Amino acid sequence: MNPLSFEPLTPLSFLDRAAATHGKRVAVVDGEQRWTYEDLHDRCQRLAGALVPLAAGRPVAILAPNTHVMLEAHFGVPWAGVPLVGVNTRLSVDEVRYILEHSESSVLVHDPQFDELVAAAVDGMADPPLIVRAGPGDGGSYEALLDRATPAAITPSNESALLSINYTSGTTGRPKGVMYAHRGAYLQSLAMLVHTQMSPASSYLWTLPMFHCNGWSFPWAVTAATARHVCLHKVDAADAWRLIDEEEVTHLCGAPAVLTMLLDSPDARRTARDRPITFATGGAPPSPTILATANALNLEVIHVYGATETYAGAILCDWQPEWNDLPADRRAALRARQGVPNVVTTAARVVGPDGHDVPADGETMGEIRLRGNTVMLGYFNDPEATAAAAPDGWYRSGDLGVLHPDGYIELRDRSKDVIISGGENITSVEVEQVIASHPAVLDVAVVGAPDDRWGEVPVAYVVVRPGGTVSEAELIEHVKARLARFKAPKRVTFGELPRTSTGKIQKVQLREREWAGRQHHIA
Amino acid sequence: MNPLSFEPLTPLSFLDRAAATHGKRVAVVDGEQRWTYEDLHDRCQRLAGALVPLAAGRPVAILAPNTHVMLEAHFGVPWAGVPLVGVNTRLSVDEVRYILEHSESSVLVHDPQFDELVAAAVDGMADPPLIVRAGPGDGGSYEALLDRATPAAITPSNESALLSINYTSGTTGRPKGVMYAHRGAYLQSLAMLVHTQMSPASSYLWTLPMFHCNGWSFPWAVTAATARHVCLHKVDAADAWRLIDEEEVTHLCGAPAVLTMLLDSPDARRTARDRPITFATGGAPPSPTILATANALNLEVIHVYGATETYAGAILCDWQPEWNDLPADRRAALRARQGVPNVVTTAARVVGPDGHDVPADGETMGEIRLRGNTVMLGYFNDPEATAAAAPDGWYRSGDLGVLHPDGYIELRDRSKDVIISGGENITSVEVEQVIASHPAVLDVAVVGAPDDRWGEVPVAYVVVRPGGTVSEAELIEHVKARLARFKAPKRVTFGELPRTSTGKIQKVQLREREWAGRQHHIA
Repeated sequence: MNPLSFEPLTPLSFLDRAAATHGKRVAVVDGEQRWTYEDLHDRCQRLAGALVPLAAGRPVAILAPNTHVMLEAHFGVPWAGVPLVGVNTRLSVDEVRYILEHSESSVLVHDPQFDELVAAAVDGMADPPLIVRAGPGDGGSYEALLDRATPAAITPSNESALLSINYTSGTTGRPKGVMYAHRGAYLQSLAMLVHTQMSPASSYLWTLPMFHCNGWSFPWAVTAATARHVCLHKVDAADAWRLIDEEEVTHLCGAPAVLTMLLDSPDARRTARDRPITFATGGAPPSPTILATANALNLEVIHVYGATETYAGAILCDWQPEWNDLPADRRAALRARQGVPNVVTTAARVVGPDGHDVPADGETMGEIRLRGNTVMLGYFNDPEATAAAAPDGWYRSGDLGVLHPDGYIELRDRSKDVIISGGENITSVEVEQVIASHPAVLDVAVVGAPDDRWGEVPVAYVVVRPGGTVSEAELIEHVKARLARFKAPKRVTFGELPRTSTGKIQKVQLREREWAGRQHHIA
Repeated sequence: MNPLSFEPLTPLSFLDRAAATHGKRVAVVDGEQRWTYEDLHDRCQRLAGALVPLAAGRPVAILAPNTHVMLEAHFGVPWAGVPLVGVNTRLSVDEVRYILEHSESSVLVHDPQFDELVAAAVDGMADPPLIVRAGPGDGGSYEALLDRATPAAITPSNESALLSINYTSGTTGRPKGVMYAHRGAYLQSLAMLVHTQMSPASSYLWTLPMFHCNGWSFPWAVTAATARHVCLHKVDAADAWRLIDEEEVTHLCGAPAVLTMLLDSPDARRTARDRPITFATGGAPPSPTILATANALNLEVIHVYGATETYAGAILCDWQPEWNDLPADRRAALRARQGVPNVVTTAARVVGPDGHDVPADGETMGEIRLRGNTVMLGYFNDPEATAAAAPDGWYRSGDLGVLHPDGYIELRDRSKDVIISGGENITSVEVEQVIASHPAVLDVAVVGAPDDRWGEVPVAYVVVRPGGTVSEAELIEHVKARLARFKAPKRVTFGELPRTSTGKIQKVQLREREWAGRQHHIA
């Protein structure tokens, strides 16, 4: 590479720039506290300085809601020269422990509201992480840590270096650690900036958890825009609407369940601004009802699609201005499509069972596959799973869709193993394994069922072992004790399972039963 | 690099994406002709296919105004696997020949309006390029070339590969070939997209010549936005205002002289649109008068700064929303500053004579230096000049400026050797050398003088050789016969030159004389 012009791409550079160029402007609002971009830069470099000796070259995990600490970790941890592991706060003790162990995290930064979860998770670990309590109720220990630290900023000489590890349920039982690179996150941040049209005048409300795919790269994208981060510790509609007013929020992201919660709130009100508020949503397509309500409240919905393995929004329903003249129902149908590669995604394909691209007829189904700089580096310490995820360089989403004549992809059936409930991925296999571990259970199948609030919820079909007895409530509790509570089935149906002639469970029949009379659960 | 996720960055990918995702939308308007993104993609790949055997691995030069041919060359030439050399159409025969020879161009694509210039330039060349006439009046030969070609698209395996060569006057006599990389142009395109907030609904009017720094990367940036390119063969205010209406133009770029011409036109009219039209300008700061008029006509001015060596707009006066509340004169003063690094520029410094950064006091002068992926690869076939331009990895602009306390750079004195007239760079040294070649001239100094229309114009101070005689008109003609006409001095003053005690010409005194009673020619 030419030393005259080659600089490794890293999203950390966006904070350097923001501090140097917009240093006196408000970067972060968290309750009554506010910090400028100069402040944020200094705090993140202090966090880095504090972590360098503690982390000793190993990953730093964080378990926190969308506080300023969580945001600071997205710069401070990589500036300590180690990857960030954002842990889903809704996971069970076992799941948290598994992630801490598998990632070999040296330090766990956590919000005090998770004291008990953390204590239970690290209890008995062979090599437990150092614990740093940080956030409301920490008695000032986080601030003391920053105060005493010498600022540091270790940047990668190789832009493909590991920036973060995001654990996903994937398609088999145990979480897999999706590895993000500095280069990928830099480019994805620019893509989010381009497609959501953020600017220095923008204000971003943190309704999307930062532990989800690093908040879809918005910790970096909002900073690249030199816009304002507005923290939100808990998604509460009244709080959100108050902040939308007070902090002049222009952009937010979240699952359709969050959008619905906002729109259905008694506090929902149309802003008097010229430009609509932009809400980027993913995980499930926004319904025509949601879109109509959003439109009435001067919210514009951007529909994105992707996986943890593709830095979240690898494709999006890029809106064509000519569509504005179409009737509302046609607009809603177009907006529900997952769409096309974003500006930095190299390509998306829909590949049929024969290994060839399906025709662009809007009918023939195939698997959605993605390629580009925003495909993960791989799964942490799992070369086998990495090779399976992209055997030929194309990431295989497992999701089935069609390609429309205009080049837009539409999902028709999500990967059989993944249920998306309120924006959270649930792997049917992991729930099945836990239910099967109950002594009274002979066989089990878990599928997604429609739910007005959460989009989908898991439901279980169970064959009881001869002589065994178990109740629906018992089985649900059995799962809740072992996995994140949202993964527990909402209903359990007892009886025989439909099978093929070779004895394989026909989940498709169970799904059809659940979705009878509803529109297809994806489209 | 990881094969799973590494794809070489190239701005050519933006056209692949536009064709695949917005293929049926209008990409290019050129007079009565329009092409969709699918058309443009096909035409550019056909141009590439036609050029592969003709170019034989050597650069392809183009001499054309802002026609669809010029735009297509920005994709078709690099897709032929060779660099694009955009030649300034206002250069002299000698200059054009020098560039063709120095760049070792194998093919010259030219608009028929330059038949004579091209014939004269290649006359007698040892290794003349193949000539391809393309554009209005070519009798259909360009279309025939495309029709018969097999589409090709050679993309670089190394993103630092050479994309284009842009000749600049630089600071010594002969033009130097500034080398752009695929990676740099990709990132600069995204930066332009981010800061000008283009979208699929945007429409870009081609007032800025594409031969200037590849049109500031807008051939690629507009395509990345899947916006509309509106060609303009000649900057005519009536045409421009007509197209602003008819094609719903939202964005354009150009020197302040172009902006002034538009604003002063009897056809100037305020658009009735919600969002202002964005005009990005550089080369000289927009005056308070220009800004007030622009504002009244619902035009928003973005002030960018850079050099050919930094892909044009490496820094920009990134507007802070809080400034909107300031009085107009204060806003104008802020807008006249050159500003801060764009979102992909790594850093800008102002370095004093002692080699250290000047204090951010808005007073201490230093040289502006830039670093990042959008600094050139170097000068083509000129390692010595390359090393001089960035001996320590920082590109030395030669321009003097101050750093304000808020981190914004303001130019105070442009590089002594460069006069910017109507957006064109003129090197005083090259004009001096030509004047000195006249037998009656003993010594000469050329400086920039203020001009209401062009910003600056070159003027000459000449010492006549004892016994020699020459008139002002003769010397002006002498220059026009050898250099581009706009480089000829507008006035010649005869007499002694002010000198230091060591005999060095004190150009600063000449400049002060020219600018007496005017505000400083930069600020």
